[in-house]
Amino acid sequence: MKSAISSLISSRNFNLHRSSLSFSIFRRPSLLLPSQFPVISTDDKATGANFTSLRRKCRFHSTKSSPIMASSFNPEQARSPPAVPLPIPPVTKFKIGLCQLTVTPDKQRNIEHARKAIEEAVEKGAQLVVLPEIWNGPYSNDSFPVYAEDIEAGGDASPSTAMLSEVSRRLKVTIVGGSIAERSGDKLYNACCIFGTDGKLKAKHRKIHLFDIDIPGKITFIESKTLTAGQTPTVVDTEVGRIGIGICYDIRFQELAMIYAARGAHLICYPGAFNMTTGPLHWELLQRARAADNQLYVATCSPARDVGAGYVAWGHSTLVGPFGEVLATTEHDEAIIIAEIDYSLIELRRTNLPLLKQKRGDLYQLVDVERLKSE
Amino acid sequence: MKSAISSLISSRNFNLHRSSLSFSIFRRPSLLLPSQFPVISTDDKATGANFTSLRRKCRFHSTKSSPIMASSFNPEQARSPPAVPLPIPPVTKFKIGLCQLTVTPDKQRNIEHARKAIEEAVEKGAQLVVLPEIWNGPYSNDSFPVYAEDIEAGGDASPSTAMLSEVSRRLKVTIVGGSIAERSGDKLYNACCIFGTDGKLKAKHRKIHLFDIDIPGKITFIESKTLTAGQTPTVVDTEVGRIGIGICYDIRFQELAMIYAARGAHLICYPGAFNMTTGPLHWELLQRARAADNQLYVATCSPARDVGAGYVAWGHSTLVGPFGEVLATTEHDEAIIIAEIDYSLIELRRTNLPLLKQKRGDLYQLVDVERLKSE
Repeated sequence: MKSAISSLISSRNFNLHRSSLSFSIFRRPSLLLPSQFPVISTDDKATGANFTSLRRKCRFHSTKSSPIMASSFNPEQARSPPAVPLPIPPVTKFKIGLCQLTVTPDKQRNIEHARKAIEEAVEKGAQLVVLPEIWNGPYSNDSFPVYAEDIEAGGDASPSTAMLSEVSRRLKVTIVGGSIAERSGDKLYNACCIFGTDGKLKAKHRKIHLFDIDIPGKITFIESKTLTAGQTPTVVDTEVGRIGIGICYDIRFQELAMIYAARGAHLICYPGAFNMTTGPLHWELLQRARAADNQLYVATCSPARDVGAGYVAWGHSTLVGPFGEVLATTEHDEAIIIAEIDYSLIELRRTNLPLLKQKRGDLYQLVDVERLKSE
Repeated sequence: MKSAISSLISSRNFNLHRSSLSFSIFRRPSLLLPSQFPVISTDDKATGANFTSLRRKCRFHSTKSSPIMASSFNPEQARSPPAVPLPIPPVTKFKIGLCQLTVTPDKQRNIEHARKAIEEAVEKGAQLVVLPEIWNGPYSNDSFPVYAEDIEAGGDASPSTAMLSEVSRRLKVTIVGGSIAERSGDKLYNACCIFGTDGKLKAKHRKIHLFDIDIPGKITFIESKTLTAGQTPTVVDTEVGRIGIGICYDIRFQELAMIYAARGAHLICYPGAFNMTTGPLHWELLQRARAADNQLYVATCSPARDVGAGYVAWGHSTLVGPFGEVLATTEHDEAIIIAEIDYSLIELRRTNLPLLKQKRGDLYQLVDVERLKSE
């Protein structure tokens, strides 16, 4: 398999170098034919599959010319495969709801509580609702197996996602369902389910980077004691745009956000539960950096703080704009943040600072291994 | 050339996959032989060459085992070539001096002023002194050709670097000499010269990413009207550790910092002159993000603010530690910041958060094109 990837990398670069067409991505966007560039799409079926096909659809924002010329340093090669053009989202402006929920050991209460929060967010205008990481039970290695659900089986085997499906269909809202512990065979995952307005599971992200850290006297947690890491990045096309998904510790890995940006994401959602040590140190910093570096929206959703819990969450759910600016945030108590997203700002910021055209593909290249394999 | 790179990428990945030795980088560091892994070294000669050879020297910090096991996701493949081990620096603790200088149209005054500032920083204990971007004249496309110097010719053709050489030798101090406009043949560059304690030019970094931005009504600047972009990243071994160099806009490209970290840098120095728009938006954010994501030190040095100048600098020169924490900073007036760097914190933070061992080389790979070619 690896040798196949390697040869793909090889042939891809070689093709890029020789193909004037590929060069034209950045130099002459108005000359592009709609069918020439792959755009990532996720499987609509409720399979939980993440990145399953490359559909050859290509859409552009207005191709008004920038006063700044593209460089001659093969910026398109800085991503391998080259970044896809930003797709036109189904909606440009909409409201997002971030539900920073209290979580108790009572699973049924947590499910009903989350349902009410989603309903409230939708009442306040949210077309996209995001829940926290691990919202149906306590965050601990002891609890994961107890609260885990068989998402693929669904129904009674997964009351948490059954609720998400029901409410998303009933209220016609897109839900990034935070995360719950997932049982699949003899393995457990930390999994985020994304439901469309039709109540169907559009994608499922299993946390890729497990939270194994050790800051003596402050915080030590080894998630890999009980959980298995996911195997794929997740980008999903929804009624409110193309969304990349990461769970908590995934945010520390800038490469993941870079991959999502190159796949055309408008927004990255990170359900997450940073703690009282890493929260003040890094939570806002990482969100703002991912947004500013990749010139897209970033939304995070944490559980509310419970100082009596075994793991004390930092809170501070936040929405960040494509200039890295904090658009809405909160402290650590339970809260529902309603804030507006305006995707036209992505294009504006990328015109202001044309980073994508200024990258040095002759010096560095970020390879999206999975996308390369799929081509 | 490109096809050669491509085949290198191909063979490299293939070798990595098959080589149990390469796997052992992360799994069994104590078993490594010192001669097996390349470490980046820069040419000591005053040629301005940046990355010229791979010397097969390899040094390790103590290999105390982490309580956290490496993952099985080929983290070493997340960098291609694999990241080199952090070298043991010649000094663990030392003081850095950041000279946030006023810059006037009087070049001779600027040179004397910088000399005095370096002397003062050394008097206060600095073993490494950093100057601002474009410190020998105004920052403008009109001024670059007027103030440019032929650094390679040296002597009278480059009074600014002649001063840096003299003072570094006389005071036995390492100098990251901010930047000046460099004339080389019919081209102009924005160049940073690094002088060793022997007064020799150890390396020269030509700004790789030119500052071409357009935020209407706020700031528009097209550096490429007069300047040519540099062709190579710059990492230099000095008396105070391995230093990666970026100039101002270079800091926006996270890939460059990732390459420097993979080349074993302890510290990245960014002389820079952000402005009154991008400064408050991004200056501190980008420094902290580069430091926290790559778990190393970041130092920046700006000119002092001159509200009467054509280009008004933000100031706020800063030192950031490997947790992304601001260790020392200032406002916009002229200042010399003296602050302590402790490289042992790099190892500590990398033990606390073992990000390098947790990267997913099976999902993403950052290729350092130049280093790959040199192997």
